[in-house]
Amino acid sequence: MLWRDMKAWQIYGANTDVGKTIVSTILCKALAKRAPTNGLLYLKPVSTGPDGEADDKHITKYAPDVLSKCLKQYSQPLSPHLAARLDEPNYEVNRRVGKLGTADWTLLNRVKDTLTRHHKEGGRYALLETAGGVLSPGPSGTVQADLYRPLRLPVLLIGDAKLGGIGTTISAFESLRLRGYDVQSVLLFDMPKWGNAKYLSDYFSHHSITTLSIPVPPERDVDAMKDQDQLAAYYEKVSSGGVLTSIVDMLHQNHFSRISKLTSMPSHAESVIWHPFRQYGLPQNVIAIDSAYNDHFEAYNQETDFVTNQPEKPISGLQPLKSTTPEAPLLTPFFDASASWWTQGLGHGNPNLSLTASHAAGRYGHVMFANAVHEPAIDLCYNLLSTIQNPRLARVFFTDNGSTGMEVAVKMALRATAKRYNWDDHNGEIGILGLKGSYHGDTIGVMNCSEPSPFNAKVDWYKPWGFWFSPPEVKLVKGQWQVQFPADGTMPRETGSTTLFPSLNAIFNFEAREDDAVFYTDYIVRSLTHLTHHQKRKFGALILEPLIMGAGGMIFVDPLFQRTLIKTIRDNPQIINPAYQSAAISRANSDPTNWSGLPIVADEVFTGLYRLGRPSSSSFWNAASSSGPEADISPDISCHAKLLTGGLLPLALTIASDSIFNTFISDSKADALLHGHSYTAHPIGCAVANRSLDEMRTLSESGITGASQPLQDSMGSWDGYRASWTPADTSISSQVHDIFSFWDPHFLATLSNHQRVASCISIGTVLALTLESVTSGYNSTAAVSLQARLMSDLDKHGRGVHSRILGDVIYFMTSLETSMEEVKNLQGTILKALDAELEAQRS
Amino acid sequence: MLWRDMKAWQIYGANTDVGKTIVSTILCKALAKRAPTNGLLYLKPVSTGPDGEADDKHITKYAPDVLSKCLKQYSQPLSPHLAARLDEPNYEVNRRVGKLGTADWTLLNRVKDTLTRHHKEGGRYALLETAGGVLSPGPSGTVQADLYRPLRLPVLLIGDAKLGGIGTTISAFESLRLRGYDVQSVLLFDMPKWGNAKYLSDYFSHHSITTLSIPVPPERDVDAMKDQDQLAAYYEKVSSGGVLTSIVDMLHQNHFSRISKLTSMPSHAESVIWHPFRQYGLPQNVIAIDSAYNDHFEAYNQETDFVTNQPEKPISGLQPLKSTTPEAPLLTPFFDASASWWTQGLGHGNPNLSLTASHAAGRYGHVMFANAVHEPAIDLCYNLLSTIQNPRLARVFFTDNGSTGMEVAVKMALRATAKRYNWDDHNGEIGILGLKGSYHGDTIGVMNCSEPSPFNAKVDWYKPWGFWFSPPEVKLVKGQWQVQFPADGTMPRETGSTTLFPSLNAIFNFEAREDDAVFYTDYIVRSLTHLTHHQKRKFGALILEPLIMGAGGMIFVDPLFQRTLIKTIRDNPQIINPAYQSAAISRANSDPTNWSGLPIVADEVFTGLYRLGRPSSSSFWNAASSSGPEADISPDISCHAKLLTGGLLPLALTIASDSIFNTFISDSKADALLHGHSYTAHPIGCAVANRSLDEMRTLSESGITGASQPLQDSMGSWDGYRASWTPADTSISSQVHDIFSFWDPHFLATLSNHQRVASCISIGTVLALTLESVTSGYNSTAAVSLQARLMSDLDKHGRGVHSRILGDVIYFMTSLETSMEEVKNLQGTILKALDAELEAQRS
Repeated sequence: MLWRDMKAWQIYGANTDVGKTIVSTILCKALAKRAPTNGLLYLKPVSTGPDGEADDKHITKYAPDVLSKCLKQYSQPLSPHLAARLDEPNYEVNRRVGKLGTADWTLLNRVKDTLTRHHKEGGRYALLETAGGVLSPGPSGTVQADLYRPLRLPVLLIGDAKLGGIGTTISAFESLRLRGYDVQSVLLFDMPKWGNAKYLSDYFSHHSITTLSIPVPPERDVDAMKDQDQLAAYYEKVSSGGVLTSIVDMLHQNHFSRISKLTSMPSHAESVIWHPFRQYGLPQNVIAIDSAYNDHFEAYNQETDFVTNQPEKPISGLQPLKSTTPEAPLLTPFFDASASWWTQGLGHGNPNLSLTASHAAGRYGHVMFANAVHEPAIDLCYNLLSTIQNPRLARVFFTDNGSTGMEVAVKMALRATAKRYNWDDHNGEIGILGLKGSYHGDTIGVMNCSEPSPFNAKVDWYKPWGFWFSPPEVKLVKGQWQVQFPADGTMPRETGSTTLFPSLNAIFNFEAREDDAVFYTDYIVRSLTHLTHHQKRKFGALILEPLIMGAGGMIFVDPLFQRTLIKTIRDNPQIINPAYQSAAISRANSDPTNWSGLPIVADEVFTGLYRLGRPSSSSFWNAASSSGPEADISPDISCHAKLLTGGLLPLALTIASDSIFNTFISDSKADALLHGHSYTAHPIGCAVANRSLDEMRTLSESGITGASQPLQDSMGSWDGYRASWTPADTSISSQVHDIFSFWDPHFLATLSNHQRVASCISIGTVLALTLESVTSGYNSTAAVSLQARLMSDLDKHGRGVHSRILGDVIYFMTSLETSMEEVKNLQGTILKALDAELEAQRS
Repeated sequence: MLWRDMKAWQIYGANTDVGKTIVSTILCKALAKRAPTNGLLYLKPVSTGPDGEADDKHITKYAPDVLSKCLKQYSQPLSPHLAARLDEPNYEVNRRVGKLGTADWTLLNRVKDTLTRHHKEGGRYALLETAGGVLSPGPSGTVQADLYRPLRLPVLLIGDAKLGGIGTTISAFESLRLRGYDVQSVLLFDMPKWGNAKYLSDYFSHHSITTLSIPVPPERDVDAMKDQDQLAAYYEKVSSGGVLTSIVDMLHQNHFSRISKLTSMPSHAESVIWHPFRQYGLPQNVIAIDSAYNDHFEAYNQETDFVTNQPEKPISGLQPLKSTTPEAPLLTPFFDASASWWTQGLGHGNPNLSLTASHAAGRYGHVMFANAVHEPAIDLCYNLLSTIQNPRLARVFFTDNGSTGMEVAVKMALRATAKRYNWDDHNGEIGILGLKGSYHGDTIGVMNCSEPSPFNAKVDWYKPWGFWFSPPEVKLVKGQWQVQFPADGTMPRETGSTTLFPSLNAIFNFEAREDDAVFYTDYIVRSLTHLTHHQKRKFGALILEPLIMGAGGMIFVDPLFQRTLIKTIRDNPQIINPAYQSAAISRANSDPTNWSGLPIVADEVFTGLYRLGRPSSSSFWNAASSSGPEADISPDISCHAKLLTGGLLPLALTIASDSIFNTFISDSKADALLHGHSYTAHPIGCAVANRSLDEMRTLSESGITGASQPLQDSMGSWDGYRASWTPADTSISSQVHDIFSFWDPHFLATLSNHQRVASCISIGTVLALTLESVTSGYNSTAAVSLQARLMSDLDKHGRGVHSRILGDVIYFMTSLETSMEEVKNLQGTILKALDAELEAQRS
């Protein structure tokens, strides 16, 4: 809702009865002087009370050259949430605090349409007046500042000039701020007795906000005609006065400043920022994100902006994109289809997380964590352990991101192995075992845990320390789920290179895949024996990304292969350390949570915490028949980040078993795990993570088997997704619990049969397509072209899709709150774009 | 303000005139039934209006068995900030939004004293009633929720039952939350017409807060006697009713839960947390931090708690500590003397930072930064570049903490060197140059940048890649500033091992130290030539922590030595790369910001951003005579974290010159800097950092030469510190600008002459003491004992000091806002503890 040639503001009141409509009338009259005929719209989306007393009628009466409109007038002078219920008993009640319901979106879309139409018809100004105070409920019960947040119009806050009004005005301001609004100005009546205007003017100057006093309106006169004349004279005088002129000038100025700042951001970024993962020698389109809400960015896309940019050839270097007209809105909503690098879970601009963050900030700021503890950290530990339900894990170590979390995991695992096997040395002899395509972060220590790739080729201190198996991969090809064996021939598979499955679910039915398990075990034993016995190599850990290797190209690994790797290493410690023959025997008699063979590290940074539909992605390794997590298969160390804070801010946890923890205990400080970042366990991160885990758990719970009082919008919100993935195969006993995706299986089948698509994968919120392409892999431009098209070909609501690519793979990811309707819409957009690509290719 | 046997609450109103005093009276009467005689105190700290109408008189009338007290009664029925000015024209006006002024502290201490005395006299309950609404101003103008924040009493929020009251009640709640308060319950009158109680009950249940309805009081009767009787009957009835019983039960329950949760935190931590840098085989006292404000933690110290712990021998394993009595407060304020691992700058629980964080959270959440940009990131880049004023630095790269920031710096520098010198290889041949005692973080890549030490001895993949000079050190010994040359004999110093200086300032007067510079140059040239020409070693970067190497033991390096190292390497590239003779010549003709010899990396993570009194700690390398930063001496890459966000949450920036940046430009993606954490440039961190830089700049500015309208409390707040460090030496021309400390020079002299102190250092906010000890270094217990004493020997205000040690070094650090009075108090505490240590040693 931002145009170059139309200015729109939202009027909020610090409380009810602070004179919002009077100030709106003054503003309307002042703006009307500068507007063309029919150029100014006064919009009251919701009004309560008798029609004759309605605010829009007041405007019509005293500012007749203003277009005045009310979208919904309720008859009773009550709060809209009560008034709506009286007039429309079935009006939807929204019970999701901080999140919009269906009725809210309907109302909001009417507001959007009204503003858009006004603009199209030559409108130059719009004033949107709310009802009551900032957090007064709207018709559905959603508080207004939440209800109108997706518009994020610049706000004029009408302050309270009476006794007590200082406090209510500042509180109202704070409620707006924590929902991401920008307040342009505070306006209030000039009542010197209470001194509010003077005080607030000083106070808000610390927030660079101008406070302005408006003369008090005349006392009400019993003579209606006289009263009307007095008021008209008051309006005429005040709206022509110097204060109003200066307000209007300031509002104009702010509008142009905002646009200028927004549209110059990409070029400012070019001169001062060093973007991650960006090759500055190649053309690149940088978008300027103005704000974000739920699944969407509101962003300025320089590549499609007509005014600042009239490129013959757009920056992306691909086919010319459609330029917008100068009248087009400057901000485009883009679906955040990379979930902002896989972090987003509970929606951008979530006011519950914002309030949680600010409470921790206000209570603690950051406080020391060495030999100290605080409530959010303790609560988070217990919450996470009960969420992931791994029978081995017991101790929680805090760091700041997945990379540092994995550095800690590596330090833990290597020390445990080196100590048990007496391999103490610093010659880099101890490597790790992993899979080809793995990636564990950008710090050099964990880069060394992956095989050579373009990511580490130019990192001077990179040194591959380990051995990596080529994994068998799960794919959907031409409607057929299958496991493909590595193309590099490392795995001798006599029966051919692919095994077919009737469903994705069937791939997880390990009991039915006994033959595959035997084959994998044999292959793993032989490979490892060769490495350790013949090549005399030493290993310190098995590190796996459960199910999907993200950065490596969204490689969906056969879970049975990962499961078998773990089992084989645990059952055969003598293969890892030939000098340690007794371990296999001693293990049976000892603690079943003790690590065996090698510490098993699960890097759940991307795949964990509901990204794939389950709290822990290691749980996909469990057999279908096991009622709960299998201790035998559970990792000894697991690492969690990204979704941990619901998508708000950095925090990582590395969790270890007691057997790992005990390795570091001695009477020497030097044996401790000497690792700890300054902001270790920062209370804001812990508090937000704690709240996020609660909200994510609620979302994931089935409504059918859920709590006794399900809230209609939040409980069971994934049941639709689950239902669509229930296999048609009626032999229920062969099904594995909770294998599903947010993406529809019929859509996947269509996709996998598309001529532009070589194969695809999907589970949980993730969808990835490998595109057909003449040049495959990293040099392919097939994905680049599709990615650019999704940004520029907007849907009927004017929305685009912001996606990320990895070579010839393009992927899409929802948050945990994305609705079925939204997913369906996205699916349509993706298919349409693929068709257009095909068309372009043909012509 | 937390006792086992006394419960205290604070009553806040959602607005003025919501019935706070009526509800308080009801609560008083209900609580009085359970309290012993004189066991319940009603405290109204500030009241306005005629004495007869005062709230405390109302309580006395209707709840006569309650002790009722008002600390300050102003005569006019106005907001206290106006009423105070009328009665006491000189009452201090506080202009620092969000921060307390002197008058606020005076009032607050009176409240504390009153509550403490009440408790001592057998009090079991206290209700503290505020005036007006949550953010109504107190007498100084400070809003009440800020004014009383240091008490952080559990809050009972009296909601507004009238039309509009839903919004004002929720906003009031949010204002309390973002200041760190815990709201126990929301109470409001039962006025079904507006439906507020019903709505709020549902709303607050999402925050696990109970909302309770109170019957509406009787209408006022014109007959005063009748009115009084009606009201008394109302109070009697309501206070005995079921709702009040359940409120009181809940409040009791919450009190015990809070204490139980608080006191069990240390043992919960023992079972589930893996603390950083902690050896679990050694006894350790873990404190539970309940909250923090400005420089202090409010913490539960299990080691001095009488009830849960009656140890014959305390956990620390040292001399028995004083146990407190069961009546002692459970929370002790501890000065956060490590500034929470060197992060703290603008005070714990700073409401301005809290509001800034929540606004960014509400506007964006986190949004993608790859090929995208947002306002807080752009603003921060420009703000930081103008703050540090380094003529070379141009490009800002974002990561999450100092360690990852330095990983990026290392990647940048090594690539630049390897590319220019054609040293492309992965054999780990390219090392770094640095100083012994350096430390750059806990990730393995940057651990490899430091020489072997206890920190990396047990990190299996640690490999020291470089050469480290033993640095000459600055120390204050027996009142004498000096430079001590390395004890290891690496630096041949004919004239003896120590050079004396009349002041700290004189050490920075490089022009007067020409001989030292010549000596250093000669030594460096010979050492490097030996390494590169004879040993054929390759180096990729010079990495320095300007001035103080923190983790290495607060080693204060002679700045002239660091300056000379940089100059020597820049002037003699042929020493670094014998095959690159032409560089010295070509350099003069090329871009003066191009790197020469080696990229110079400044690790300012600890020392930068005002920690040592200056925006950039690299600026200490500049010559006294240079009017601004010297390009010749400025680093090519610098890294900033810790104080960057004012002490609130993790964020790091690595800034590079264009000559470094250009290294990564090509037409191949694989040549880019392929580094980027998920939450790169998270908007909350950027927004908070931006605000923090502004606040820190204001604090650092001199009031004398400052802006035209200095605010008394913020501008020039360091002038007192600066003045005390102006050298007595009158030859002004020899003085270097802005060499000062928050610690008094006379105190330092006393300290350095103390029998327990071997030497000390201080600059900016940092003070470090090396203690005299039989066993020196890492195994010394001298510092442990002093550290424990500072925790247990409380000062006359009942406050302790929480400090951190590094072997036989104990250090203390203030925030950037710590007052001279607070520093003076700390200085006294430190000297007293040292004396007590001496006494204990003698006996």
